[in-house]
Order: sequence, then C-alpha cells, then structure tokens
Amino acid sequence: MLDYPALQALVAVIEARGFDRAAQRLSISQSAVSQRIRQLEFKLGQPVLLRTSPPRPTELGQRLANHLQQVQQLEQALSTDDDADKRLRVRLAVNADSIDTWLPQALSAASVSRRMDFDFVVEDQDVGLKRMKNGEVMACICASEQPVNGGLAQYLGSIRYRALASPEFKQQYRAQLAGAELDQIPCLIYSADDRLQHRFLQAQGVGDPKYNHLCPSSYGFVNLALAGLGYGMMPELQVQPQLRSGALVDLVAGYEMDVPMYWHYWQTESPALAELRQAVVQVAQQHLRLG
Amino acid sequence: MLDYPALQALVAVIEARGFDRAAQRLSISQSAVSQRIRQLEFKLGQPVLLRTSPPRPTELGQRLANHLQQVQQLEQALSTDDDADKRLRVRLAVNADSIDTWLPQALSAASVSRRMDFDFVVEDQDVGLKRMKNGEVMACICASEQPVNGGLAQYLGSIRYRALASPEFKQQYRAQLAGAELDQIPCLIYSADDRLQHRFLQAQGVGDPKYNHLCPSSYGFVNLALAGLGYGMMPELQVQPQLRSGALVDLVAGYEMDVPMYWHYWQTESPALAELRQAVVQVAQQHLRLG
Repeated sequence: MLDYPALQALVAVIEARGFDRAAQRLSISQSAVSQRIRQLEFKLGQPVLLRTSPPRPTELGQRLANHLQQVQQLEQALSTDDDADKRLRVRLAVNADSIDTWLPQALSAASVSRRMDFDFVVEDQDVGLKRMKNGEVMACICASEQPVNGGLAQYLGSIRYRALASPEFKQQYRAQLAGAELDQIPCLIYSADDRLQHRFLQAQGVGDPKYNHLCPSSYGFVNLALAGLGYGMMPELQVQPQLRSGALVDLVAGYEMDVPMYWHYWQTESPALAELRQAVVQVAQQHLRLG
Repeated sequence: MLDYPALQALVAVIEARGFDRAAQRLSISQSAVSQRIRQLEFKLGQPVLLRTSPPRPTELGQRLANHLQQVQQLEQALSTDDDADKRLRVRLAVNADSIDTWLPQALSAASVSRRMDFDFVVEDQDVGLKRMKNGEVMACICASEQPVNGGLAQYLGSIRYRALASPEFKQQYRAQLAGAELDQIPCLIYSADDRLQHRFLQAQGVGDPKYNHLCPSSYGFVNLALAGLGYGMMPELQVQPQLRSGALVDLVAGYEMDVPMYWHYWQTESPALAELRQAVVQVAQQHLRLG
C-alpha cells in the first residue's frame, strides 16, 4: 500500500509551490514535509519531485499526484452530506480546439463541475491519449477512437476545420493558388504535433509546407491569420464572427475537414466523473457534427 | 570553429521531423546525415538529438540550432540581390498575451517579416527571459527590464489587465465579494508560472486563491470566464467586444494592473532583426500604454 500522507505532502508542495507553504497548508512542520517526501522516494527508489524553484513533480511524481486525486474521488463517493461542499481537483487532457470552443459551455452545463477545480493539460488531438496511457489524467478528449488499457471511449461528434486566411493574404498568393503550388504559401502551425495543415496540403495533392510560422497560442494563431502572415486550419466554431464579416475566407473554396472527438475515461470512473461525462456528451452533441 | 554542415544536418532533421526527409532536403544520403550528427556529438561530448519519433533536439541541440539561425542571418546581411527572396527562420520567446493581442499586427506592419518564418515560444511574461539567457531564442518579449549578458532591452509600453468574470458569476459570488473573502472565489490561472491572479488578490489584501482552474489556452481561458467557471486577469486589448457587450465585467470595479513589456535582443543583432525590432516598437507604442 502506498504511503498516503506522503502523497498528500507531495501534492501540497506542488500546489503550494514550496515546502514552507505546503507545511502551513498541512499544519505540520516543514521538516516533516521534507521527510515524508524523502521516505517516499527512498521506498520507490526514484525521485518524485525536482527541487527547483518552484518545485516540480517528476513524471512518477505527477502519476502519484493523479492517483491521489482518483483515490480522493472514490472516497468522496463514500462521503456523508457534510463533505458535499468539498471541491475536487480534476485533471483532463484536452485538445486546444475543444477547450477553445465548445467545452467551457459543456462544463458549465454540468452542475457537478461547480464542485470541481479543473487542471487542463492541452495537447494536440493526436497525442493527448499518451497522458491517459501514462495515468497522468482522469479523462481525455482527443481524436483517437481506441481506448487505452483499463479505459473506455465515448464518441462526442466531430470538429469541422477549414483552411482560412485573410482576403489580402489570399490575393497576395493568388499565383501560387492558381498554379497548384500550395506548398509555397506560408502556413500557421500550432505545435510540432499539429499535422492538420499537412493533411490539408496532402488532400490538395501537394507536399509538406515549405514555409510556416509556429504559434502555440490560439488567439495568436487566429490573429496571425487576420494580420496576413499565413493561413491555417481553424475550427469553424472558433471563428464564426470572422467568417461572417469576411475577415477570414477559405483558401480553397469548399474544402472542409471533420475530425472526430472522443471522451476517454477509466473503467474505475467515480460517480462525480460519470456525471460530468454524461453532461459533457450531451452538450457536445449539440455543438459538434454527428455522423 | 563549429562543424556547420553538421549543424545544418541537425536543423534539417528537427525541421523535417526525420532523418530520411532531412537527407532528401539536403540532397545527401541518410547515412551521411546520421554520420554528421554522430561526429558532432562525439566532438561535443554530449547528445544534440533525442532519437524519438519525431527526433527532438536536446537543450544543447536547440542552442546550436538557434546559433545556426543567427549565423545565417549574419550571412544574409552580406548577401547579393539574388538571395533577397530567401526566408529566415526567427525564433522568438513571447508572452501569450502579446502574441494574442497586439504583436501579429506589429509583425504584419514590418515589411521584413514577409521574409521571415516565425517560431514563437510562448512563455509566461515573468519567465520568458530564461530562453534568452539559455541562448535558445533571437529575441524575447517579457516583463523584465534587466537585459541578459550580451543583450539589450527596449521598452514597448504596458499591457493593461483587469480581473474579469461573467455577470452571473459575479452575482453567484456576491457574498464572498461583499465579505472581502475574494480568495474563496474560483479563479482561472493560465499556467503554473502565471501569478497575475495572486497579485490581484494581494492588492485586495487577501491570500492565495483557494480554488482555481488551470487553463493554458487563451481562447479557453476567456471562454471559461464567459461560461462562469471562474474569474481571471485578462488584457483589455483581448476582450474589447466582451467588455462592450457586458459579457465580461470587472470583479472589483476600478481595479487595473499595468504590466510593462520589453523587447530583449542581442548586441550582435542582424540588420533584418533590427528592422523587425524598429517596426515592432513603433506599432507597440500605438497599442500599449506608455508611461
């Protein structure tokens, strides 16, 4: 059995960003906090915390912190009414385009989410499942259909993407558009894991983009397109005002890409997380495309 | 002197996400690419590339890649008209709130940026300078006034932040607002490095937030506030439509926080980067608050 007081000390140090504040929070001495964590590391034979400023968990430390959250959730399911006000920390891996568009409304619709503190880990839709496999998160929204070991997946609907640019940008690159040299047109890429622009070019029968700007911030991504620095794949849901006003237009008329989204969860799901999932699925199906 | 063909091989593997595509790009064999990188590592006595899929640079590898960019820029300053069309890769550390608001327009105003491919490294405004210290980036926008060794800093103006929430959220927590228990109100935090909400609470005379949602995506951050899950510090520039429509309101009337921004650059700045800096400074001063 794991040493749970040591896990609590670990989580307190991470959340309070220091040993002294963790000690205050737990109402024990700072040396007691250090000792618990050292003993935990001794037993496990590897570090759980990097002694940086502020301290950060190792990969193992993060897995233990997440495990403690899951145990606390299971405890909450046993709890009496006295504890009903207690808030839960819920760590979710989500793709940026979900948290940037439909997900906040879905969480807001779930009454259970009023008792949750969310910790969103933003990963590309094609790699978020790694966080689930590593046991770092309690649920995951991503494009993979296949559940992880010990997990299940539920279909949410699809996000529709379009390749969008400013009208001035499209005008500037009209020669490349006409000449089917789309790989010569600068594009925006969200992160090294973001392959949507590559898939768009592939569908147009050309190779990888020759020029690109890498921008891992979503407002920045849209604003770089508006400012005419590149085109990029954006969810329709995210840029409805810009599509209506004509500030963003399709680079290739009629091109659309639908990416399916799944909610991945553990078979040992707590009642609170089941309630959250059911509410999220319901709202997702109002915003995403089904098919 | 460094082995520049080996550095080019390293950068090609990183950018093309593989040894085979790097070899194609350089028009040499795949084994020549591998050999150059192995020899580089042998000379330096440490790895420059993690052999993952796709391969990723080590910290040293990233510094070497950035060094190659700087050398290429210096070369470009010597170049003849024939090379004028060649695009430069420019790696910048920026705070999310700059790339999300005024920076795209500033870049768009600089004619030199039409010949640049930007690689934005998004870091909190208080920590971006680390990337500059490590030599990983060619310039940095952050809140620190003090230049790094070998660098200079130029003032850009300040970003004005307000603590904003939906009107329904403010109504829901009116008791905590009236009772000066602001630390009991759930807040949004962008990342572990984001201390703006803590500074807001400090200015109100209360301690750290008891409850928070961590959301490292900027549209998500604003949409979580709109959906009523928490309040957060947002740049006025980012949410002008929501402020006008009343969808977001001040949690504490009249509270504002101005955070100064600086452009950090190297004393060995290339002519192209100097041109970029001058254009950015000029546009920044139209959008940011001076004083």
